[in-house]
Amino acid sequence: MAEKHQGRQTAALAHPPSVLSFANIGGRQEGRGPLSECFDQLSDDAYFGEKTWEKGEAAMQKAVVARALSRARLTPAEVDYILAGDLLNQCIGSSFALREFGIPFYGLYGACSTMGESLSLASLLIDGGFAQVCAAVTSSHFCTAERQYRMPVPYGSQRPPTAQWTATASGCVMVGRKGPGPYITHVTCGRIVDKGIKDANNMGAAMAPAACDTLCAFFRDTQTSPGEYDLILTGDLGALGHEIVTDLLKREGFDPGAQFSDCGLLLFDRQAQDMHAGASGCGCAAAVLTGYVLPGMRQGKWKKVLFAPTGALLSPTSSFQGESIPGICHALCLQSSV
Amino acid sequence: MAEKHQGRQTAALAHPPSVLSFANIGGRQEGRGPLSECFDQLSDDAYFGEKTWEKGEAAMQKAVVARALSRARLTPAEVDYILAGDLLNQCIGSSFALREFGIPFYGLYGACSTMGESLSLASLLIDGGFAQVCAAVTSSHFCTAERQYRMPVPYGSQRPPTAQWTATASGCVMVGRKGPGPYITHVTCGRIVDKGIKDANNMGAAMAPAACDTLCAFFRDTQTSPGEYDLILTGDLGALGHEIVTDLLKREGFDPGAQFSDCGLLLFDRQAQDMHAGASGCGCAAAVLTGYVLPGMRQGKWKKVLFAPTGALLSPTSSFQGESIPGICHALCLQSSV
Repeated sequence: MAEKHQGRQTAALAHPPSVLSFANIGGRQEGRGPLSECFDQLSDDAYFGEKTWEKGEAAMQKAVVARALSRARLTPAEVDYILAGDLLNQCIGSSFALREFGIPFYGLYGACSTMGESLSLASLLIDGGFAQVCAAVTSSHFCTAERQYRMPVPYGSQRPPTAQWTATASGCVMVGRKGPGPYITHVTCGRIVDKGIKDANNMGAAMAPAACDTLCAFFRDTQTSPGEYDLILTGDLGALGHEIVTDLLKREGFDPGAQFSDCGLLLFDRQAQDMHAGASGCGCAAAVLTGYVLPGMRQGKWKKVLFAPTGALLSPTSSFQGESIPGICHALCLQSSV
Repeated sequence: MAEKHQGRQTAALAHPPSVLSFANIGGRQEGRGPLSECFDQLSDDAYFGEKTWEKGEAAMQKAVVARALSRARLTPAEVDYILAGDLLNQCIGSSFALREFGIPFYGLYGACSTMGESLSLASLLIDGGFAQVCAAVTSSHFCTAERQYRMPVPYGSQRPPTAQWTATASGCVMVGRKGPGPYITHVTCGRIVDKGIKDANNMGAAMAPAACDTLCAFFRDTQTSPGEYDLILTGDLGALGHEIVTDLLKREGFDPGAQFSDCGLLLFDRQAQDMHAGASGCGCAAAVLTGYVLPGMRQGKWKKVLFAPTGALLSPTSSFQGESIPGICHALCLQSSV
């Protein structure tokens, strides 16, 4: 059971759940980027052996769940809940991937914040006494996202400099009541923040206020300051969003310092890979968490990490109807020991 | 904190959270049906005062949250979490409705099972000690669903007898640590079940196996039988799905009896309103729960209710790609006293 809330948005977990295992998979561009060594598996085939990109995205989720299960020496029957979602309409990446495992399933929609949302709810269900083991999983795919949100890929449409590139990647984390760490010590549930940005090619700017809102809530609730964290990662604001949130945080009195970065800035080499503002997609934060953050924490690189994936809660329909872009950000504090 | 799990899928809540308040809203067809008296508000205007159906759907969610808050004499700042989702691509019904309340938000995708999923997670967060008050909300809209899933409404396409009619409705339940009841005593998280049904005009048949799976898990886990419940409601299987799940349950040794019905059978008069197999949509189970079940329990009509909304986790894309329809069902046990 949780301690008394330290504040309005942050739950301090009384018995911090542990990461048991994790796994990821990436596509061609991910394999050409600076984090290529961080993937368990990279596929040059955008279909991942399937007949369509959507089925390929489901295949990615299936692969990472199977690998994370095997690494934790768990059978699906030993997992109490699986929490998952993705960017596809009606989240078919998750439902078609996970139907074979037979694990009780809560489907989520948090756009690119899904890795944060799924890991948060997994941790809360365990700390609340409802589960021994939970799985948190998400994915995104450049080709499924492009044709759904923007243009059919073969059109080769021109992208403005503020545009981000949807990662073709999936990640899964198994969380349990006891384990070797890292441990999830705090969970901050974000609020929807919409400052009126309408440019669907500038999601970083749309999501930055939500990231600021959640990070400030986290620092206030936990009475800590950015300097106490070895690494603070939003995801995936990209280059412009990262600048904006840095400014916004400073205005709120929180100078995030040099340990502040963004998953969207880490996954690709923006110049060499011509990635404009950086990476995006649920798979971006999932891959950076499972390929870079968690292994780095286990290797002793960082002891205390604040992981805060961001999501843009728009749809093509809402943009066509002239709506602005609501953003959200869910944050978790990870510690290598408790 | 929960007691030790009674089984693999069902959490028995140690301190059953209470319903604090509830509210709903419906459209024209809902106002012509047998439950017309069960709505707080009915609108002949399918736009609910907005310029598009999608914005109208968001307006419905906004209205029910505001009304449920006011009935419980709560401000948004007193609500710890809001859990919501809908059928629209990227769940824009929820994100655009809820952005103004500033309540920490976990977005869900459970298709027509969303009222069950949101109420389950709300109850678990409260019983786990993470919240005093949570809101569970969802909606659906005939016109937004038709144009997204099937055909533009003005085409007037012919519907087969197995087709269901998406409810234009929204419902919200405020749940708290203490209150007058009804109380949520058990929560069963469903598994994805896919028996290969591919006909998107026969969702009842596609979801029936999931409903059977979850109901059997509930009865096994709680060591109870259908006869111990005053009302058992799946939602929204419709006429054919209801027959199928009745058969499937009997085969598993659970005769659900005369108190077994389906939200999709209650909302409309199928003959007089020409509704074919019945109602569907997230709003159907939400409206039946908030307009019929909860008021009926408070009036002493039923003491022990098993509420088990069902969802079909397909998308038009998955159907175009030849995929079958995965189903899910989340169940809750509601009791008027504990």
